[in-house]
Amino acid sequence: MTQRIAILGASGYTGAELVRLIATHPDMKIVALSADRKAGMTMDQVFPFLRHLDLPPLVKIDEIDFSGVDLCFCALPHATTQLVVKALPRDLKIVDLSADFRLRDPADYEKWYGAPHAAVELQAEAVYGLTEFYREEIRAARLVAGTGCNAATGQYALRPLISAGVIDLDDIAIDLKAGVSGAGRSLKENLLHAELSGGTHSYSAGGKHRHLGEFDQEFSKIAGRPVLVQFTPHLLPMNRGILETVYVKGDPKVVHATLAAAYADEPFLKVLPFGALPSTRDIAGSNFFHLGVVGDRIPGRAVIVAVLDNLTKGSSGQAIQNANLMLGLEETAGLMLAPVFP
Amino acid sequence: MTQRIAILGASGYTGAELVRLIATHPDMKIVALSADRKAGMTMDQVFPFLRHLDLPPLVKIDEIDFSGVDLCFCALPHATTQLVVKALPRDLKIVDLSADFRLRDPADYEKWYGAPHAAVELQAEAVYGLTEFYREEIRAARLVAGTGCNAATGQYALRPLISAGVIDLDDIAIDLKAGVSGAGRSLKENLLHAELSGGTHSYSAGGKHRHLGEFDQEFSKIAGRPVLVQFTPHLLPMNRGILETVYVKGDPKVVHATLAAAYADEPFLKVLPFGALPSTRDIAGSNFFHLGVVGDRIPGRAVIVAVLDNLTKGSSGQAIQNANLMLGLEETAGLMLAPVFP
Amino acid sequence: MTQRIAILGASGYTGAELVRLIATHPDMKIVALSADRKAGMTMDQVFPFLRHLDLPPLVKIDEIDFSGVDLCFCALPHATTQLVVKALPRDLKIVDLSADFRLRDPADYEKWYGAPHAAVELQAEAVYGLTEFYREEIRAARLVAGTGCNAATGQYALRPLISAGVIDLDDIAIDLKAGVSGAGRSLKENLLHAELSGGTHSYSAGGKHRHLGEFDQEFSKIAGRPVLVQFTPHLLPMNRGILETVYVKGDPKVVHATLAAAYADEPFLKVLPFGALPSTRDIAGSNFFHLGVVGDRIPGRAVIVAVLDNLTKGSSGQAIQNANLMLGLEETAGLMLAPVFP
Amino acid sequence: MTQRIAILGASGYTGAELVRLIATHPDMKIVALSADRKAGMTMDQVFPFLRHLDLPPLVKIDEIDFSGVDLCFCALPHATTQLVVKALPRDLKIVDLSADFRLRDPADYEKWYGAPHAAVELQAEAVYGLTEFYREEIRAARLVAGTGCNAATGQYALRPLISAGVIDLDDIAIDLKAGVSGAGRSLKENLLHAELSGGTHSYSAGGKHRHLGEFDQEFSKIAGRPVLVQFTPHLLPMNRGILETVYVKGDPKVVHATLAAAYADEPFLKVLPFGALPSTRDIAGSNFFHLGVVGDRIPGRAVIVAVLDNLTKGSSGQAIQNANLMLGLEETAGLMLAPVFP
Repeated sequence: MTQRIAILGASGYTGAELVRLIATHPDMKIVALSADRKAGMTMDQVFPFLRHLDLPPLVKIDEIDFSGVDLCFCALPHATTQLVVKALPRDLKIVDLSADFRLRDPADYEKWYGAPHAAVELQAEAVYGLTEFYREEIRAARLVAGTGCNAATGQYALRPLISAGVIDLDDIAIDLKAGVSGAGRSLKENLLHAELSGGTHSYSAGGKHRHLGEFDQEFSKIAGRPVLVQFTPHLLPMNRGILETVYVKGDPKVVHATLAAAYADEPFLKVLPFGALPSTRDIAGSNFFHLGVVGDRIPGRAVIVAVLDNLTKGSSGQAIQNANLMLGLEETAGLMLAPVFP
Repeated sequence: MTQRIAILGASGYTGAELVRLIATHPDMKIVALSADRKAGMTMDQVFPFLRHLDLPPLVKIDEIDFSGVDLCFCALPHATTQLVVKALPRDLKIVDLSADFRLRDPADYEKWYGAPHAAVELQAEAVYGLTEFYREEIRAARLVAGTGCNAATGQYALRPLISAGVIDLDDIAIDLKAGVSGAGRSLKENLLHAELSGGTHSYSAGGKHRHLGEFDQEFSKIAGRPVLVQFTPHLLPMNRGILETVYVKGDPKVVHATLAAAYADEPFLKVLPFGALPSTRDIAGSNFFHLGVVGDRIPGRAVIVAVLDNLTKGSSGQAIQNANLMLGLEETAGLMLAPVFP
Repeated sequence: MTQRIAILGASGYTGAELVRLIATHPDMKIVALSADRKAGMTMDQVFPFLRHLDLPPLVKIDEIDFSGVDLCFCALPHATTQLVVKALPRDLKIVDLSADFRLRDPADYEKWYGAPHAAVELQAEAVYGLTEFYREEIRAARLVAGTGCNAATGQYALRPLISAGVIDLDDIAIDLKAGVSGAGRSLKENLLHAELSGGTHSYSAGGKHRHLGEFDQEFSKIAGRPVLVQFTPHLLPMNRGILETVYVKGDPKVVHATLAAAYADEPFLKVLPFGALPSTRDIAGSNFFHLGVVGDRIPGRAVIVAVLDNLTKGSSGQAIQNANLMLGLEETAGLMLAPVFP
Repeated sequence: MTQRIAILGASGYTGAELVRLIATHPDMKIVALSADRKAGMTMDQVFPFLRHLDLPPLVKIDEIDFSGVDLCFCALPHATTQLVVKALPRDLKIVDLSADFRLRDPADYEKWYGAPHAAVELQAEAVYGLTEFYREEIRAARLVAGTGCNAATGQYALRPLISAGVIDLDDIAIDLKAGVSGAGRSLKENLLHAELSGGTHSYSAGGKHRHLGEFDQEFSKIAGRPVLVQFTPHLLPMNRGILETVYVKGDPKVVHATLAAAYADEPFLKVLPFGALPSTRDIAGSNFFHLGVVGDRIPGRAVIVAVLDNLTKGSSGQAIQNANLMLGLEETAGLMLAPVFP
């Protein structure tokens, strides 16, 4: 039976990506789209690339009748989100793409986002949406919190290694290279083509990036002790894709074998042969994640390179994967689109 | 019943694009892939973005058993193609993506491609693959010749206008802006990122581009008299997409109304409201074509802007659309993928 | 003797480009920089690429003592400019980069810019800054109005042809491809890297672009009768450079010979051999202009392709060239920097 | 007195960059240009962006009369270079841009470049061309070996720290992001615009990149003990520029102070205020190097980000800086060109 879908915050990139993916999803149909400041417009006025679709008009959230909605994707900014989700029907299935329900501890939320959480009880209810590691909880969940796109990439590279105890927990550095769509449709000088094209720079360096909250929460939980990683993000002149280069201390072959075993049966997570490294160009537009491991010339050190599309596997594709589980659909439904190359 | 598909020349961009599209096609399965110089390799060695697919290995053409093939896509270079197709079984359905069977008149072929045609009888048999204008012939055809990507874009903009007699046939100029994937995976200095990025230039200007052969053949046929257009191509620092700006003399509103009426029921051809113009970013990765018309300040002159993705609607998507017809499938099967933006 | 230079509006791209060029100019020294909203900041806070220079701080215009200034560049938005220039000392030499003094007729200004001109007497005084065609007037001028970057490109391609009477004046079409720096540092969605990269689109099509006011004024003056051209601009995913493809009716060889003769002694205007066409990548960052002519296959039609860097020859480089003349310096002083390639 | 300059290997990017810079050098004049496979062509046929210059034609090396040459830049591939330099007059001043004379120990050369050195005596004579650290030796040298562009970037970030003993020598990781012009004008699929644009990937990871030979040689010499760094290069979709993110263990404030003190008087090396980080867009086309330091949230760890233009400060600009010293000219002569932005 076709599932009726609402998308709140449809005028941003992750909202548009949800629409793109659902357009060819066999079991989902969009019945409502909200966009506060653009209410009254049609989706193709905001995103002409969706012109061929027959979509409901953009409305304000309170104009939506949620009784006819099976699942609601929430693609709103953080802070706003917690207020909106709090006001939604308590039996409505929700996949949230914001940062508001990723951190379980209210103190952690306040530390990283600079204000107390306004929906602490929902924060406790929410399941962390890293599908491959929370599959059963997600299947049973009402509210799933999509992960940060950078946080997803790093966790795929590191969780099995921390679980298996095969790397030094006190010396992990993640050097991230991110495409600009991760910054959303925000109007800033350094996101202009004239300024970004042909340039790269680091941002939120030195342990200030908010996705560190997720790394800390998850890695410490797995390890059973505090784990702090170094995380240095860079903005690149490309649109889609994240490449993370992860420096760990451990036996490279063991690192590779541990990851390869962990993901052997995963439909979206692909581990390359030892020594081969992936490129963002090979996952753009898709829900696939590629990972490679190489040994450094210094014995006992391994370099892991992991890539995914921040808008798809890092955000909207992940959200649909989780929604598929919550709705009892095939986990991969609508998500097997091949990457777009070149 | 799933149709068994072979792709000859699978190691080029159009071959890879066929695989990308067929990956989620509900009624097609790839049973053979050829690539002469890369025979023996697997497809993911040549195109890592296809890593998630279970594909047959790359072989030489003569290793393929065509008795198990329902339809064969031929994505080989021109000149080579005519020799290969000539040697294929005479009852095999073929969609050719090269230039070899686009021109019906052997003299035209020789004029534009500089050598006599080696399979003149097949040239006569081939149906020109501009789907929306040759639908019934394609449905009945055994051999369909895919159009040039530039030629398709210009024909969509001009055919209904020439048919309807609403523009001056002696004063048509097409200024084309093309993404670099149209040049294929060829290794040339001006296709290097270092040289193309941040630069644009004209090529084959002054009436030398081979797709003019198609324009001449088709426009003259429709008009019942010789029609020669001006055609000036430019290479742009982008990967996918063609934008053609077409300068015509005629009433802009009539031009718009004629095109809008012609394409009102077409699933892939979208005419924007009068005065709105399209962008390549809105069709990338998809089989959609967008067209807009604006009136110039000089009365009696109209400017048409048309866009499509050269690898999809301009080549491999068009090929699948034609194959769908030849195989009795739904014309849009596997082709409703939304564009990828941003 | 070193000339003391002020730049008003130093926080935009053309202001920064003036600083870049003056940094190695042998006879100019920057003594004042204004930027209203960024007053109090240093230039390297606004433009870190100028970090190595010892520059005056950004101030408000009324903080500048113009008695110590030999020449003032005004790089402010149009409309604002006329009010600012009106208030400057009447004996101050000024090169204006805005649109405010390009059109001589107040009615033309109002037609294209939508409001009456507030400094009509200065409008009359201003000399149009297309250096190669107004050299003597500029040498004697107090106030020079820099041309539009698109307008400069098209005029270089067409003025000698109109003067010589070798083309049909009623059938001229200019198809422009422009890099994004021409849009300035303005924050708009379609200037974001995520939206522009990989995409191209037309804008102000159909005779709405304001630089048409300059084309009309200048071409009609040369021809001694009204001349209206078609002008269709496109925005490209590149930062610097304009390429204009100009369609004219006339003998291609005569067109070429006329242009080659006109520019034979010009230090910055280079005409390529007949049949060769230029690329934007060959003039980026420089004050050079390249032009090529090719004959169309239709007899009596020529295609001209012309390129320049919109920020340099199209704006700030042109401004310095004019300033050199006004200050009695060598015309090419500080402007012989080679293009940056790749 | 104007110095007479020859450039061997003028048809590559570093050769062209030498010509670009010398074009406005006050004390140098190009008297000979070689390019073996393109001998007989003019420079503007190979590089149209140099069209405005009056340059000698491209010839074969043995056609050059070196008696009229004051200094020769050698921009040839490694391995070829050592044979060519060996055959040049023994009193000719030479700045070599290849890898052939960077490593002092013949065994090191063989280890990293896979073949014995054919001019061991010249290898011993050559001075390592990292100007700021070998200034006096370079002034007196006849043969200077330009550094690797990646090696220069990393050494600027690390040498003062190793000298001062303020970081842990056993835990240094350099994560490099490099623009594509560093790969030269070579024709490879992954350097095509269609493949690189929108994609990034790691290469020579795990300690295989040849510039490690330089790091090892120099850092071990300074430390007086073996120092091995981790070095992981990535290719980015940009043309000019290198950004290196260097992970060190040491007090961040001390790290910053040490670097700031070391470069306080350097004309080309700029250290940003503590906590500020540089971008490649701010040095493109120039001989400037920008460096920033930030402290990680983990105490005792610092992140250094350093940028330069691989073709200028990393190669041809450095070469001219060295040539200036060797010829008794002002060290900065011809090199104060501001970066090109945007």
